[in-house]
Amino acid sequence: MREHMRQMSGSMKFDAVIASSFENVAYLSGALILTQRLIPDRLALVIWPRGGGPTFVVCTIEESLARRDSWITDVRGYVEFAQSPLAPAVEILKGLGLEAGHIGIEMRHLTAHFFVELRALLPRATFTGCDRFLDEVRMVKEPEEVERLRRAAQVTDAAIRDAYASGTVGSTEREIATRMQMDLLHGGADEVAFMTMGAGPNARMAHPFPSDYRVQAGDIIRCDIGGSFQGYYSDLARTAVIGRATPPQIDTYRRIWEIHEEVITAARPGALVADLFHKAKTAFERAGFGFALPHIGHSLGMGLHEHPMVNARNTIPLEPNMVISLEQVHQGDDGERYHVEDLVWVTERGPQVLSRTRAWSELMVIGRASP
Amino acid sequence: MREHMRQMSGSMKFDAVIASSFENVAYLSGALILTQRLIPDRLALVIWPRGGGPTFVVCTIEESLARRDSWITDVRGYVEFAQSPLAPAVEILKGLGLEAGHIGIEMRHLTAHFFVELRALLPRATFTGCDRFLDEVRMVKEPEEVERLRRAAQVTDAAIRDAYASGTVGSTEREIATRMQMDLLHGGADEVAFMTMGAGPNARMAHPFPSDYRVQAGDIIRCDIGGSFQGYYSDLARTAVIGRATPPQIDTYRRIWEIHEEVITAARPGALVADLFHKAKTAFERAGFGFALPHIGHSLGMGLHEHPMVNARNTIPLEPNMVISLEQVHQGDDGERYHVEDLVWVTERGPQVLSRTRAWSELMVIGRASP
Repeated sequence: MREHMRQMSGSMKFDAVIASSFENVAYLSGALILTQRLIPDRLALVIWPRGGGPTFVVCTIEESLARRDSWITDVRGYVEFAQSPLAPAVEILKGLGLEAGHIGIEMRHLTAHFFVELRALLPRATFTGCDRFLDEVRMVKEPEEVERLRRAAQVTDAAIRDAYASGTVGSTEREIATRMQMDLLHGGADEVAFMTMGAGPNARMAHPFPSDYRVQAGDIIRCDIGGSFQGYYSDLARTAVIGRATPPQIDTYRRIWEIHEEVITAARPGALVADLFHKAKTAFERAGFGFALPHIGHSLGMGLHEHPMVNARNTIPLEPNMVISLEQVHQGDDGERYHVEDLVWVTERGPQVLSRTRAWSELMVIGRASP
Repeated sequence: MREHMRQMSGSMKFDAVIASSFENVAYLSGALILTQRLIPDRLALVIWPRGGGPTFVVCTIEESLARRDSWITDVRGYVEFAQSPLAPAVEILKGLGLEAGHIGIEMRHLTAHFFVELRALLPRATFTGCDRFLDEVRMVKEPEEVERLRRAAQVTDAAIRDAYASGTVGSTEREIATRMQMDLLHGGADEVAFMTMGAGPNARMAHPFPSDYRVQAGDIIRCDIGGSFQGYYSDLARTAVIGRATPPQIDTYRRIWEIHEEVITAARPGALVADLFHKAKTAFERAGFGFALPHIGHSLGMGLHEHPMVNARNTIPLEPNMVISLEQVHQGDDGERYHVEDLVWVTERGPQVLSRTRAWSELMVIGRASP
């Protein structure tokens, strides 16, 4: 993964970048520092000078893990509370002669607190956002990354499929969701990154936690679930119905699925991201559905909503080996949400769906009563 | 929970505060917006003027959940990508006549990007950090919060106990960890917030993900696990040994446990947090152990490392109804870490441990061979 950075860092506009988010630090260093997400003040940083070799700054608590897992040999520890995490970073930048340099920082990750401190510590330096630059470093996936994302998606889809199949009228959302999460972990996820599920009245919310609600015949059930697999996300949403489906439910699902497939088919190299968005919008309107989605997908990798986001304003063209989550949501007349999502690998030969372990083209019926 | 804020907001130095972190927004609004953690750019904000009523700003995707779960009736939606999340916030502040007001923001949460944008949108306003103020609002728990934290800790301790008991020589870390997470979810956790586990060589790391390593007789195994229960964390670390324990292992564990108990006993109203830290340091040194910990605990609630952190510099006195995680870590001669952690409720009658479903005072032996 770091090869992209090596190539792109030679011509970057910054004298050095400071990566601070979990996904960029994991991508650049190869080490997953879990507490970066949990304890935001406990910074882990990768400092990468233009065309040079990087340094990895971590708190001493995480130093053994960083040394075990990272390919970066220059690891510097700081003692939490005794020292600011920025102190070693500033020393490194000074050592590189960049006291008055142009430093790229993650403006969308670094907090205002550390931003103010960094400017005070290096008053002659210029700081600008390197968020988009690092997005672009991570945007096109290497074969190993595609393979990881495929495995993660397959495990996740199978977990949804089997947990749905295990549900019956009277199961609680929590029971179905726990089964799903267990399968995700058994399948190799290091952690469940998020698990939202709602049936019946709860299917009206976008991201509810699974509750003790007992599912009833005729309820729409939907989940949106993701795991973390060696730092790579899965992210899939699937919709089903409990017991029996009404003709309008079957029809609504089928029409959303058609739109979903139509958008996926358009995900070819050269297609503009915004065009996918407008294709979905047009199809929704043609179907007589309202359309109020701010986006219909996002790239996926070590970040969850990676660049490019599939929204109306993003005019960048798709490239081979981008891997995108494409998703469609529709709120039916009774307020229940239908949500479908797949992971799509953009290739020269066309889009390849990486995330299906069954045909999801017809509304799945859970716990169908025996005939 | 919001009663603390209502009381304290009347005399706060800010004309208004803008809460932006998951924990503060959840605490003040009563709604858990899961995507706040997952998608940092998708801000959810509670704006609370001095002595007045709050407004809740969320993206339209989360609006139905916010309206269902929050007691705040003034909910304003913004359309992601079409609008900045700060646009409605700025309108609200202007409506309050605070265009040139003193606004408290979470400097340790709000990113540099939004900080710069906010200052540009309200150039006459003054912005200072309200992080500590909100820490103090959340610092002393209400009875219902203590009860939630107790239940969360009990479920988590039982999950560790039973998963450890299910392990045998040859089990993988992942198998034991998956069992643990399943019990946590069955016990009522909405999600597993973090799950780190290491045995044998992996017990040397602070926070490793569970791996496919098969545990061997004599291995130290340790975990540090937390769940999220209606927004409240659990956080417990426990150490055991596989198959059989050597006398030095038994002895090392016993001495750490003695220190752990000594520190817990000192957690009484009026005791300074730093004194707990120094008590641990002195005890470690007396035991002939090295001591390099930057902290030996933290308050727990809707945040994981809540104020007060139990470190050398924090001289605030304990108060009744603070709830603190106290933890001791020691790295043995072979590099394996021993880690114990309990949740302690500070009361007028003394410290009460909320987190034990078995006696952990002796090193637990997992999968002991039958005699």
